[in-house]
Amino acid sequence: MVVHLVRYEHNERTSWGVLAGDLISPLDGEYPRTADLIEHGRADWIAAAARAGDVSAADVQLLSPVTTACRVMCQGANYRQHAIESGMNPDARAFNLFFDKTDASVTGPRDPVTRPAHVTLLDYEIELALVLRGTVTEPTTVTNENLHEYVFGVTIGNDLSARDVQLPQGQFLKGKSYRGFCPLGPVLAVLEPDDVRLLDDLELRLEVNGSLRQTDSTANMLYKPAETLTELSEFCNWDPGDVLLTGTPHGIVAGSPPAFVRRLATALLPEDKLWAAFVKLNQRKPYLQPGDVVTASIRHAAGTLDLGTQRNTIVAANP
Amino acid sequence: MVVHLVRYEHNERTSWGVLAGDLISPLDGEYPRTADLIEHGRADWIAAAARAGDVSAADVQLLSPVTTACRVMCQGANYRQHAIESGMNPDARAFNLFFDKTDASVTGPRDPVTRPAHVTLLDYEIELALVLRGTVTEPTTVTNENLHEYVFGVTIGNDLSARDVQLPQGQFLKGKSYRGFCPLGPVLAVLEPDDVRLLDDLELRLEVNGSLRQTDSTANMLYKPAETLTELSEFCNWDPGDVLLTGTPHGIVAGSPPAFVRRLATALLPEDKLWAAFVKLNQRKPYLQPGDVVTASIRHAAGTLDLGTQRNTIVAANP
Repeated sequence: MVVHLVRYEHNERTSWGVLAGDLISPLDGEYPRTADLIEHGRADWIAAAARAGDVSAADVQLLSPVTTACRVMCQGANYRQHAIESGMNPDARAFNLFFDKTDASVTGPRDPVTRPAHVTLLDYEIELALVLRGTVTEPTTVTNENLHEYVFGVTIGNDLSARDVQLPQGQFLKGKSYRGFCPLGPVLAVLEPDDVRLLDDLELRLEVNGSLRQTDSTANMLYKPAETLTELSEFCNWDPGDVLLTGTPHGIVAGSPPAFVRRLATALLPEDKLWAAFVKLNQRKPYLQPGDVVTASIRHAAGTLDLGTQRNTIVAANP
Repeated sequence: MVVHLVRYEHNERTSWGVLAGDLISPLDGEYPRTADLIEHGRADWIAAAARAGDVSAADVQLLSPVTTACRVMCQGANYRQHAIESGMNPDARAFNLFFDKTDASVTGPRDPVTRPAHVTLLDYEIELALVLRGTVTEPTTVTNENLHEYVFGVTIGNDLSARDVQLPQGQFLKGKSYRGFCPLGPVLAVLEPDDVRLLDDLELRLEVNGSLRQTDSTANMLYKPAETLTELSEFCNWDPGDVLLTGTPHGIVAGSPPAFVRRLATALLPEDKLWAAFVKLNQRKPYLQPGDVVTASIRHAAGTLDLGTQRNTIVAANP
């Protein structure tokens, strides 16, 4: 049985609990940081999971199960169809694409997300987020057999992206890191060694105002968690509670024109004109607007693992 | 008088001290993290600076004055001539380019740096590194008047870069974050409010095996610290002891061909062939090789601020 943890505020107190159905069974201990829970909470959540829940999930404010400060590492173009819609050939890919978001972007699974005043092309990206464990400070070989020593659990991430900042500037960091651009949660599912196989068979689903935009299975992930963490350890340390977002499937708003159009435009237009044309063309597409509601869910078809539903409303920046 | 701090190991003990000439005056307290020094060390370093030094700098192992975990935020193309050599027009620049390195890359100012086995185009980038103070979790306006509340001091950074990873992959993170790719130190110069003006008039100088490769003045920096930190706070939190590398001047090994050549090549060649051609052409250039010694220094012409000399030898990876 996979334990489904939630972090929440109730009666002005922040707690952790085990979610079963619509009821939460609170943990006895206090764990201010996700790292504290990972390192000291095990007996507590096992006990809580054995009790019937007595707090209604509808009565609490669900919080990000990942506390900050934390590292938010990311993979790009890690699903077949999304690589194609981004203008890449997944069969010719020679590398696992890494970047990161700042932890300033982390927000709760039900929090409003402010679209910055200068951003017009706000896009969504549902992703399976691995919540890491262990302290890694040297190159480390991670396999499916020892993955549970490095991955504590999984949750839902939305890698919100200001395409009109990210793409013209080339480096992804800023356009993907505005405050609120990384909703996480609500459920942090704890992976026992036997549960690792579930990671290869999860269904991701993202809707905007009830209309389906993204759906795919983690079976279509190009670079899997074990090989990805092995490579990550070559150039990145991690501590308990850090996060790896494993890439988004197809269905984002921003798409890439065919390769020959891109190459011709790049040859003919100076860079500033090229991006002005990109932004203008993209204005017609259904990017996120204030008032839009983004819902994201990830679950295993058998129901053994269910990360719940993330629901964030986009709001306008204060004038 | 600017206080010049160093962190060092001597008789199997890690200490902080004030450097004056070739002598170190040790601080009495222990400050395991740079944040501890920043928050609690002031009276201690003032007292140490008033004493004559009694430890020879030649007898100690100089360490990075920035301890990990820390954020290592970076600016790209932030000097006029370097922007031009990178194929950009500094007068048409519409944005301050941010990216980051992982803190796995941080190493000491005299440590050997391993060139990873798969890297052939290893390049250097001397940078003025701001060591930050304060805890910033919301958009914050930083000015020259309050800069000292957010910048504790400055040190030397070398943003070592594997061009054959960084440029073909597009995102800078991995190619700039291999272990050892961010030597910091040796001196951490503490900035009092009156010293902030010195930041605009520092001379940077980097040599390889005694031959000058980079020299410029911070006067030619495009986006200055105050406006940069204001923008950074829109999408990034920081804590005491985090670092901002403010960009490198011209003189790196990698350069960009003229714009029309780049645009033509981009139009005519598929991406993998384009980068294969780039790597092949670049093999002839004087990238860093095992055995090369990189020395970097930053100082004010008047001698009031001197960040010492960083000296790192490039070594081959174990086969």
